[in-house]
Amino acid sequence: MSKLGSIVSVMALVSASSLALAGEWQALPSKAPEPASNPSTPAKVELGKILYHDPRLSSTGTVACASCHNVMAGGEDNRAGSVGVHAQVGGRSAPTVWNSAFNSVQFWDGRAASLEAQAKGPVTNPIEMGMKSWDDVVARLKQIPGYPQAFAAAFGSSDSVTADNAAKAIAAYERTLITPNSPYDKFVNGDKSALNDQQQRGMKLFAETGCNSCHSGPAFNGPTLPEGTGFYQKFPMHDNGVLEAQYNFTADKGRAQETKNDADAHLFKVPTLRNIALTAPYFHNGKVKTLNDAVRVMAKLQLDKDLTEAQIEDIAAFLNGLTGEFPKQEMPRLPGYPGKTFDFN
Amino acid sequence: MSKLGSIVSVMALVSASSLALAGEWQALPSKAPEPASNPSTPAKVELGKILYHDPRLSSTGTVACASCHNVMAGGEDNRAGSVGVHAQVGGRSAPTVWNSAFNSVQFWDGRAASLEAQAKGPVTNPIEMGMKSWDDVVARLKQIPGYPQAFAAAFGSSDSVTADNAAKAIAAYERTLITPNSPYDKFVNGDKSALNDQQQRGMKLFAETGCNSCHSGPAFNGPTLPEGTGFYQKFPMHDNGVLEAQYNFTADKGRAQETKNDADAHLFKVPTLRNIALTAPYFHNGKVKTLNDAVRVMAKLQLDKDLTEAQIEDIAAFLNGLTGEFPKQEMPRLPGYPGKTFDFN
Repeated sequence: MSKLGSIVSVMALVSASSLALAGEWQALPSKAPEPASNPSTPAKVELGKILYHDPRLSSTGTVACASCHNVMAGGEDNRAGSVGVHAQVGGRSAPTVWNSAFNSVQFWDGRAASLEAQAKGPVTNPIEMGMKSWDDVVARLKQIPGYPQAFAAAFGSSDSVTADNAAKAIAAYERTLITPNSPYDKFVNGDKSALNDQQQRGMKLFAETGCNSCHSGPAFNGPTLPEGTGFYQKFPMHDNGVLEAQYNFTADKGRAQETKNDADAHLFKVPTLRNIALTAPYFHNGKVKTLNDAVRVMAKLQLDKDLTEAQIEDIAAFLNGLTGEFPKQEMPRLPGYPGKTFDFN
Repeated sequence: MSKLGSIVSVMALVSASSLALAGEWQALPSKAPEPASNPSTPAKVELGKILYHDPRLSSTGTVACASCHNVMAGGEDNRAGSVGVHAQVGGRSAPTVWNSAFNSVQFWDGRAASLEAQAKGPVTNPIEMGMKSWDDVVARLKQIPGYPQAFAAAFGSSDSVTADNAAKAIAAYERTLITPNSPYDKFVNGDKSALNDQQQRGMKLFAETGCNSCHSGPAFNGPTLPEGTGFYQKFPMHDNGVLEAQYNFTADKGRAQETKNDADAHLFKVPTLRNIALTAPYFHNGKVKTLNDAVRVMAKLQLDKDLTEAQIEDIAAFLNGLTGEFPKQEMPRLPGYPGKTFDFN
C-alpha cells in the first residue's frame, strides 16, 4: 500500500493547473521503452506478430490475441465484454493494445507488471483462450514445424520454444504498436493548424476541467513511471446514485479483487486516451456507449463537474485529435501443420 | 439435371489415363478470370480486403469472413465445423478461400454461381455471421465514415454503399488470393528438382490411381469451366460400411439439399487440392483428421482401391508439393466509427 499511497500523492501534486502549462503537453515517443531482460530484435518481433495472430493458441482454434485486441482497428473489439472460447463473455472491457507499451502496468487492475506477464494471462484464462496450461500451448507449438525455427531465430536454437519466450516475443511485437503523429502530436510539435479551433478549445478545457490530473503524460495515462509501478485512480471518486443505477460501475472492486486489500477497492489503472475515439464503448465495464457520454460521466464522477453540451463536444473533439498514425504492417504467415490439425474443442 | 449429367459425362471422358500424359499437368495461373460484370480495380480490391476482415459485418462484432477463411493460414480454420456467432458450429467444413476464384461454383453444394453470390451468404446466415439482413449491414457501413468514401472510390459516389457492391468488392479481393509457384508448379514449368523423388512417385501414382479423374486442371478441382457451371462428383461412390460407421459421410445429402432433387444426392463440388496440406481436417464434414487418412479414404470410396502405406505416403508427399507461395499482404485498416460503436449482441 505504501507504493500506491505515494503514487496517489504524486497524482495530487501533479495538479491540473501545473499540467495546463504549455510545456507539459507531451508528444508520443515513436519508440517504447523495453526491459533489459527482453531487448527487441526483428526476429523476435516477427515471431511475436505471428503468435499474436495465431488462433491455435486457444483451445478451440478460434481465438487469437488479435481477436479481442484487433490491430486492424483500435486495438480492441468495440464490445463491452470480449467474446472468448465457447462464446463466453469477459467481465471487463478489453483495453487497447495500441501504445500499451507505455502503461507501467497491464490489465485494468494492474495485475501484470509487464507486457511479458500480461501476454501469458489470456491464453490460459478459461473464458478467454481456454488452454489448460502453457505446457499444452508449448506442446502444440513444437508440433508446428515453423515455430521451432522461428523461436530459434529469435532466441537461439536449444529448445527455445517456451512459454517465457512466447510471452517475450509477443511483448516485443506489442512494443512496436505505437501510434505517433496524431493531430495533437503535430500541434504540440508546432503545427498550430493540426487541431481546429474547437479542438484547441477542448484541449484547454481538458486541462482546466482537471482531466489531466490523471490523464497526463505522452500517452495520457499518467506520468511516465518505471515498468511495474502502476498509476491508479479510484473510480468513481464521487458517489452518484443516478449514474450508478445507470452504469453499475461499483459492482467491480477493481484492484482490490487482485490484492484482496480493501484499500484498493475501486482502484483502476488510468487508461491511455490515445485513439480513444476508436475504442467505444467505454470504461472497465464498457457500459458507456459514446465518447460524449464518457466525457460527461468522467467529469461528474471524478471531478464533480457538470459540463455543458458544448463543453463536452469540445473535449470530445480534442480527444478525436488523439487518434494517431497506425504503422503499416504486413500480415504474418501462420506456420502450417502439414497434413494435420489439432483436436480443437 | 441435364447440365449435371453432361458434366459427369465430361468427367468420365477426361479419364485418368489421358490426364496422366505429361502435357496435362497444368501450372496455376497467376491471375484469376474475372466476370465482365465485376472488373477488378485496386480501389475495389482494397475495399474488399477491408470488408473481408471487418467483424462488424457480424451481429456480435466478432466474426469476419477472415475468421473462418483465414488468409494468414490455409484460407480456412482447420476445424471440422466453423464457429459462428454465439459459438454456433456450422454443418460443413469451411472450404479454403485461396484459389477459390478457380472454382466454377462456390460452397460444397455449389449453390453460389460466383464469388459475388457466395460473399453474401455467410453474413446473414444465422449460425455464421448472424446479421438479420443486408439492409442492416448496409445501414452499419453507412454510419462508418470511411466506408462511404471507400465505396465511392471503388464504385462511384452516388449512394454506392450497397450489398451488391460489398459482395463485388469482396469477390474482387478474393480473386487476388492465388498461390502460384508451388513445388509442383515449378516442376511442371521445368524445374525437375522442385519435387523430390518421393513426390514424383506420388505424382505418377496420383494419376495412375485415378485421383485426377476429378482433381484435374490447374487447381486440381476439375476442368476449367465457365463460372456458374459446376463440377460435381458423388461422394462416396462406393459403399463401405466400415468407413461410413467411422466417418458418417452420407448424413449430408450434398447438392440435393439445395436442389431438392434426389438425383443430386451426395453430389459435392470437387474441391481444389491446392494447399491441401494446410487445410486439415478433410472432407465436407471435416471428420478425417490427416492428409494420409484422406488419401486412403478417397482411394477406397471413390476408386475402390486399397493403397499401401507407402503409396499413401508418396501421394501425400506429392500433395504437400501443392502448397504454393502466398502473396504478401498489408493488413487493412478498418475504418473507425469515432466515439461510437454498434449494439452488438
